[in-house]
Amino acid sequence: MTTIVDKVIAGEVRTVARLIRDIDDGIPEVRETLKALYPHTGKAHVVGITGAPGVGKSTLVDQMINRLRKKGKTVGVLAVDPTSPFTGGAILGDRIRMQRHSLDDGVFIRSLATRGHFGGLTQSTRSAIDVLDAMGKDYVIVETVGVGQDEVDVVKSAETTVILVIPGMGDDIQAIKAGILEIGDIFVINKADREGAEKTHSDLTLMINMDLKKYEGGKWKPPILKSEAVFDKGVEELLEEIEKHRRYMAEFEKGGLTTLRSEKARAELAELVKNRLLEEVFNRLIDSGDFDKAVESVAAGEVDPYTACDDLLLSRIDAIK
Amino acid sequence: MTTIVDKVIAGEVRTVARLIRDIDDGIPEVRETLKALYPHTGKAHVVGITGAPGVGKSTLVDQMINRLRKKGKTVGVLAVDPTSPFTGGAILGDRIRMQRHSLDDGVFIRSLATRGHFGGLTQSTRSAIDVLDAMGKDYVIVETVGVGQDEVDVVKSAETTVILVIPGMGDDIQAIKAGILEIGDIFVINKADREGAEKTHSDLTLMINMDLKKYEGGKWKPPILKSEAVFDKGVEELLEEIEKHRRYMAEFEKGGLTTLRSEKARAELAELVKNRLLEEVFNRLIDSGDFDKAVESVAAGEVDPYTACDDLLLSRIDAIK
Repeated sequence: MTTIVDKVIAGEVRTVARLIRDIDDGIPEVRETLKALYPHTGKAHVVGITGAPGVGKSTLVDQMINRLRKKGKTVGVLAVDPTSPFTGGAILGDRIRMQRHSLDDGVFIRSLATRGHFGGLTQSTRSAIDVLDAMGKDYVIVETVGVGQDEVDVVKSAETTVILVIPGMGDDIQAIKAGILEIGDIFVINKADREGAEKTHSDLTLMINMDLKKYEGGKWKPPILKSEAVFDKGVEELLEEIEKHRRYMAEFEKGGLTTLRSEKARAELAELVKNRLLEEVFNRLIDSGDFDKAVESVAAGEVDPYTACDDLLLSRIDAIK
Repeated sequence: MTTIVDKVIAGEVRTVARLIRDIDDGIPEVRETLKALYPHTGKAHVVGITGAPGVGKSTLVDQMINRLRKKGKTVGVLAVDPTSPFTGGAILGDRIRMQRHSLDDGVFIRSLATRGHFGGLTQSTRSAIDVLDAMGKDYVIVETVGVGQDEVDVVKSAETTVILVIPGMGDDIQAIKAGILEIGDIFVINKADREGAEKTHSDLTLMINMDLKKYEGGKWKPPILKSEAVFDKGVEELLEEIEKHRRYMAEFEKGGLTTLRSEKARAELAELVKNRLLEEVFNRLIDSGDFDKAVESVAAGEVDPYTACDDLLLSRIDAIK
């Protein structure tokens, strides 16, 4: 145990890779390692990058890595891909272009995809962030497809959240923007040479301004940047804004203006308790054979699922104080 | 109670609307109504329509409603929008164009968006489908943004799943296709007049054929259609394929070739048990004050979250048989 922890802290790539794979596979034994690593976390700046498919997230992350490395910063990247629940592994796809960094010791890139029966992807991501943080990476970048609730939850693990959009994505873009507006610290319009970039910019500005009271009292107001990641345009400006947001967050926390730390602890603990509870109780329901019996009764039309659920749970739950 | 059930079965719009709002709000009292409605379900054909933002889902659904109505069929539509977890209500946005059906008694359209603390969107959707089914709608169409795991789960409530794509959506489209391929019964390439439609068609064909052994023994092989929903092109063909799939499913079930009904019961019961368990146990943890104490300890750095989770749960879980 101690050896694994020591090796992670020493930044040993193979140990870290194995540990993250074990986290992704939901191996229960990793809990003890994570407990021991926890005191060594909290130094990395965790940046979430999210956006719909095709907006250029991987290209942007690739350019960010390149520039951060030139500044002497080390970078960990977690590509979270919940779009493939069946294949059991993240599609590497366009992430191949990040491979130019694969021989650089200062960069560690891994994909997370697996989700247990109860969807522990948010927890896996948090744990993997902790590992890259304990490993000593200056930045941990979490890249995820930003549409569903899962992605929103995953992104909440980040300290700075970057929302990537592109011009002219059709009607639904409004819905996405509205859904993610609240979690965006920085907005980036990528492929900004495309038609409609100005309209997207003014739409975003309007939506941010509509929410003006959120920014009272010197609170962070999300900037809207433009980029053409494929030509490395706008990437430096993004890194500057990320650094600004980092400094702002540090001030904000120090000044006691909020209970950020407590909010983070609450979210993390709730997620842990949720996954553990489902895992333990479902195992008992399944091992006892009661769950299968209930399924058969429902399938045979002998009982409705709502009553079957009551029968399975109520007496058991009453045992809990 | 009986009155509500009778009114739903009689198709009374205001009662149904209120019940669905209560489901969406997670009001516990709806459980008894749902129990009583359950024996009246199972008649509607439930069709899921999913695809990335901007592919034209709402336009297609609007045209489908129009054509189904001309055939004398009644239609219920649930627009599931988990992209907006904060605003507490689905963004109606482009669904406004469906409003031309709002004066038609044979059409009932509602949005679902709210998710409880533990994300019961899948459960809400299932319950709302049951209500529209009990109300007597011939078709229930569930429209959802198809990217994350949530959407995949929601779509699993459907008997026939239609995956909508458009040509040339960028690199990530491959990842999406791979993720949703397994759940698609029918694929539609919308905006098929756009450049790249042939490439998308051959990509999809290849991916379906790679999975050939799935289609052995006369199993359903997903057709790939082309449409231009905005011009009502390809919509009739889609309805025909949906009808074919419905007949195929009926044969399939009758022939005892599968345990479809049992699989559906298992998924539904698992979802119910999961949500109920989290709701009940979390309420106890919070009411006892133990959860808040644990959060403070973690925030103060006195304990790591993994140990805090053990402390909260282990003794309580042991009480469950």
